[in-house]
Amino acid sequence: MIDPQPLASWNEGAAKSAILDFVGAVTKRGGPDFAPPAERIATFDNDGTLCCEQPLQTQFFFAFNRVKELSAEDPTMAERQPFKAVLEHDYDTLFGLGLQALYELAFATHAGITDEEFDEVACGWLATAKHPKVGRLFKECVYQPQVELIAYLRENGFKTYIVSAGGVDFMRAFVEDAYGVPKEQVIGSSVKLRFDAGGDRVSLSKLPELNIFNDREAKPLSIGLHIGRRPLLAFGNSDGDLAMMRYARSGSGPRLALLLHHDDAEREAAYDREFRLSPLSEALDKARDYGITVVSMKRDWKVVF
Amino acid sequence: MIDPQPLASWNEGAAKSAILDFVGAVTKRGGPDFAPPAERIATFDNDGTLCCEQPLQTQFFFAFNRVKELSAEDPTMAERQPFKAVLEHDYDTLFGLGLQALYELAFATHAGITDEEFDEVACGWLATAKHPKVGRLFKECVYQPQVELIAYLRENGFKTYIVSAGGVDFMRAFVEDAYGVPKEQVIGSSVKLRFDAGGDRVSLSKLPELNIFNDREAKPLSIGLHIGRRPLLAFGNSDGDLAMMRYARSGSGPRLALLLHHDDAEREAAYDREFRLSPLSEALDKARDYGITVVSMKRDWKVVF
Repeated sequence: MIDPQPLASWNEGAAKSAILDFVGAVTKRGGPDFAPPAERIATFDNDGTLCCEQPLQTQFFFAFNRVKELSAEDPTMAERQPFKAVLEHDYDTLFGLGLQALYELAFATHAGITDEEFDEVACGWLATAKHPKVGRLFKECVYQPQVELIAYLRENGFKTYIVSAGGVDFMRAFVEDAYGVPKEQVIGSSVKLRFDAGGDRVSLSKLPELNIFNDREAKPLSIGLHIGRRPLLAFGNSDGDLAMMRYARSGSGPRLALLLHHDDAEREAAYDREFRLSPLSEALDKARDYGITVVSMKRDWKVVF
Repeated sequence: MIDPQPLASWNEGAAKSAILDFVGAVTKRGGPDFAPPAERIATFDNDGTLCCEQPLQTQFFFAFNRVKELSAEDPTMAERQPFKAVLEHDYDTLFGLGLQALYELAFATHAGITDEEFDEVACGWLATAKHPKVGRLFKECVYQPQVELIAYLRENGFKTYIVSAGGVDFMRAFVEDAYGVPKEQVIGSSVKLRFDAGGDRVSLSKLPELNIFNDREAKPLSIGLHIGRRPLLAFGNSDGDLAMMRYARSGSGPRLALLLHHDDAEREAAYDREFRLSPLSEALDKARDYGITVVSMKRDWKVVF
């Protein structure tokens, strides 16, 4: 089962070596850095870390499409912000709202149905929706080197989690196929749910009210709540992941915090500080101070998709 | 690895047959009721379902001991309710508070330290603290038939979760040894956490403020948030578990909801409606209507501990 040549899509270099050395150390029985399998937790951000988030996170394409569908039934939406901006493709207004407000907009379009019905709607959209720039299905805009890394960690006894600002229900609709990560190992932003036991079938309805916006310090806090263990490895790509990376890195024993830098305009995109929805600035400046290993898409990855 | 004679501590009868038939059906490849491993989620209440909760849930013994320790440092606690009632062994007052307030009392004694420090304190207490009635260590007051059931489900590809009103951090201190359930598969009541990044070490501090009281309808809601799948099997022992049992039972395909009835005064305890902290009344009355299988401790279990 163990791949004799893991991380085939990673170029030789400091990042790949850091990963191989770390996994070798924590899995070496009797070694000074051995970690029992129960402690092998790895957490990954999703958008921009495992899949393309340019020009927008996938969930917003889905939500904007929902706005179009819902406004056909309710024309007053076209008069109301922020839906008006969506229908008018007014991205300056939309980006100006910030990431949390944009997720709240998305969640508003996901409310009023059960979590199981939502899963069907999301899977239906994902089955055919294509990324406008990459030119493949959104659910296939995932980074091949990361899929290999997740598989490699799993082969070495790690439980791999996604810890993202993205909506948990939307991510659950594709993470198993895309990364081999089960639904219950996804932690994200969420809305409040309502328990409905009126009819024949008991179910959970999605409300338009935010439960948790899972970004920045909320990431380690939700890891404490959902997992109850400090991860041995954390991988992010923006300032929104810095708290999680520092939390993982500052535990005792061997730890690895990785930061993906999008510096590859040719194969994907080159951006950091200027991406208004999820900038990479402080984490890049302080990576060395905090012991975070920077991964360059251009230098460290043989292929992207 | 598969036990040829599973559930050795269960007597032959309707309950054991229901379990064996259910597991046989969902694991039979090509059968009409086959469920892929990813869908095999089972959720168990903890106190009273997996371990003894008489005369009080284990966590309260721990918390009352913490009140004693903390009041030695802060004598004003002896003058303040509800701590006064604890120090005076005034159980009538304490039971009158109800389950949520009693957990809030417990959580107040757990605050001001990190989740990792709390784990050490709880493990230290659990290492030696004995149940006053059962006469063995608290962490060994677990029901042998249930330990076998959890192992049997796991052998058959189920992921087994604990979904309890108990404090999540306290349960995480013993569930791996007691039941073989990993920390990250425990969902419970919780306090808010604070992210501390001031010193050398980044950590999560436990606050005295309730985050979620995980009882009744909160159980299916937290399953929706943490797991994102409707369980195929749910096992409880009180009205606090009814919503979770109904949620599991009302999904499509084969489902099993089980309710443990404590009717064994000789080997453990006989109680239901009169247990003020966590009564069994509506769930017992409506078990047949809701398709819930009642398990009699006296009739269905060969041994208890």
